[in-house]
Amino acid sequence: MLAVRLENGKVELGDERRPRRPEGFALLRLLYGGICNTDLELQRGYYGFSGRPGHEFVAEVVDADSPNWIGKRVAGEINLACGHCAWCKRELGRHCPNRSVLGIVKHPGAFREFLTLPENNLHVIPREIPNETAVFIEPLAAACEILDQVKIPAGSRVAVLGDGKLGLLVAQVLHAAGSEVHLYGHHKDKLRIASLAGIQIAIARTIPKAEYDWVVDATGSAAGLRQAVEMTRPRGTIILKSTVHGLVSVDTAPVIVNEIMLVGSRCGRFEPAIKLLKSGKVRVDNLISEILPLERAPLAFRTAAKPGALKILLKA
Amino acid sequence: MLAVRLENGKVELGDERRPRRPEGFALLRLLYGGICNTDLELQRGYYGFSGRPGHEFVAEVVDADSPNWIGKRVAGEINLACGHCAWCKRELGRHCPNRSVLGIVKHPGAFREFLTLPENNLHVIPREIPNETAVFIEPLAAACEILDQVKIPAGSRVAVLGDGKLGLLVAQVLHAAGSEVHLYGHHKDKLRIASLAGIQIAIARTIPKAEYDWVVDATGSAAGLRQAVEMTRPRGTIILKSTVHGLVSVDTAPVIVNEIMLVGSRCGRFEPAIKLLKSGKVRVDNLISEILPLERAPLAFRTAAKPGALKILLKA
Repeated sequence: MLAVRLENGKVELGDERRPRRPEGFALLRLLYGGICNTDLELQRGYYGFSGRPGHEFVAEVVDADSPNWIGKRVAGEINLACGHCAWCKRELGRHCPNRSVLGIVKHPGAFREFLTLPENNLHVIPREIPNETAVFIEPLAAACEILDQVKIPAGSRVAVLGDGKLGLLVAQVLHAAGSEVHLYGHHKDKLRIASLAGIQIAIARTIPKAEYDWVVDATGSAAGLRQAVEMTRPRGTIILKSTVHGLVSVDTAPVIVNEIMLVGSRCGRFEPAIKLLKSGKVRVDNLISEILPLERAPLAFRTAAKPGALKILLKA
Repeated sequence: MLAVRLENGKVELGDERRPRRPEGFALLRLLYGGICNTDLELQRGYYGFSGRPGHEFVAEVVDADSPNWIGKRVAGEINLACGHCAWCKRELGRHCPNRSVLGIVKHPGAFREFLTLPENNLHVIPREIPNETAVFIEPLAAACEILDQVKIPAGSRVAVLGDGKLGLLVAQVLHAAGSEVHLYGHHKDKLRIASLAGIQIAIARTIPKAEYDWVVDATGSAAGLRQAVEMTRPRGTIILKSTVHGLVSVDTAPVIVNEIMLVGSRCGRFEPAIKLLKSGKVRVDNLISEILPLERAPLAFRTAAKPGALKILLKA
């Protein structure tokens, strides 16, 4: 079968054996995969990664312990948890210290014709959600995670910094949840997507100071985090939604003097994401820049890395 | 009257006129002042400060609008708020954007024989609290602020990093509030003070990884903040209790991946601090390194800056 590999910064195509399905796991046939910024970082070798990437996908179950799964169209949670530890018992397997992570840590990823995941990780995709939309369930769940972590009162003004894929998803999620979202970005065409969704937009050159009780940093840049601190009112909250590679220089003084709260935010539950896509309250069709066949993965990675690119999908 | 000035890194003594008492203000005669690390930072010119420092004090009211105040022994909240803005209306004048701050921002400080503060800022000190203890009300209030900001479940294990004055106060406050406090520091003699108060202590060389749900950073060092991140479990909380001068390099990746919350924490309400000192649940007598007369302020500042020094008091 066809499989994508990352090796020394290169995207390579290989012919591999179909993976063996362990007990408790399902064997999945890939339909679509989505290239995430994390995949581009893995390609750059940020985490010493080499291997098979891919964690955003929609697939069809071809084999499983339970025959009920077979033929189902699914998305899958990316953290493979042990199921026994205190985290797993609290339904927070996303933080299980023994976990592997699909396409990131010790479990080969989704950019191949067949992959495996525990049945427990799978979510059936409702009929109303087409494949090209379903592939957004994983990043949308990460955006929804904010709502599980902090209670933003309805009608609150929330600034979202960064008009990339994640920023656009976060802005839509918070808008759908009843916040007055102001999206700050640098790209007119991306901001227009948010604007069409009823979100207020602003070019990020001029940043208002101490203006918001809620700020989400989805810039992935050190400058973004510093701007977030400047924009936040005393006792306000900043949600850190995107990592910055390497060390970030922060002035802790305004964080302490203004008693600002910073909340790191990562993966989320799939249920709210599926609900939002099913209801049409979040639209992702205009976040797709290009759909390329799996065998053109090297080109797809190059395209995804171009400035201004939004989501690049791989079609199996 | 005698007054201390900071000018170009020097501690100077001057002879000044007694300050005029504006309406709504009390005229106070200093009894004791306490030198805080912030005073040492002001001396070093960190905030472009020059002027009269001092914000930890106990004083006697000599004149006020209301005669009831006269003769009372008081401590005073250091933020002079406008009283009209949205922050003031929420009883959060500590964050009033129009505020001045005693001995720090636009209001001359307490290290002089007489000073002024709004009557609203004053708290009468109960008889049971001697002067040398009362001077700790302000920094102890800052330690108590943690309890107003986060809800730490009773019996929780809390790591406090830093065995300086603030760390020792924070450790005692959290211990009194029912937490199992582990204080990490580098000074055996300071750790012993905490140990006598029933607090578990550890030399900060060996830091356990991902061990605590609650960590307070009171080190004032960039290394302390990085250690705090390492020690915190997923979904845990770090309270940033002391600023680090200049920019701090932080790796945001573990904060985001482990969904850690960082909470900046500054000044606090005086009421809980007064209560703790009155009840004897927090002891501060063994935190005093030396008491020097106000006219020996230059020596007092030098002594306070020595490694290993705890609180230096100025007696008027």
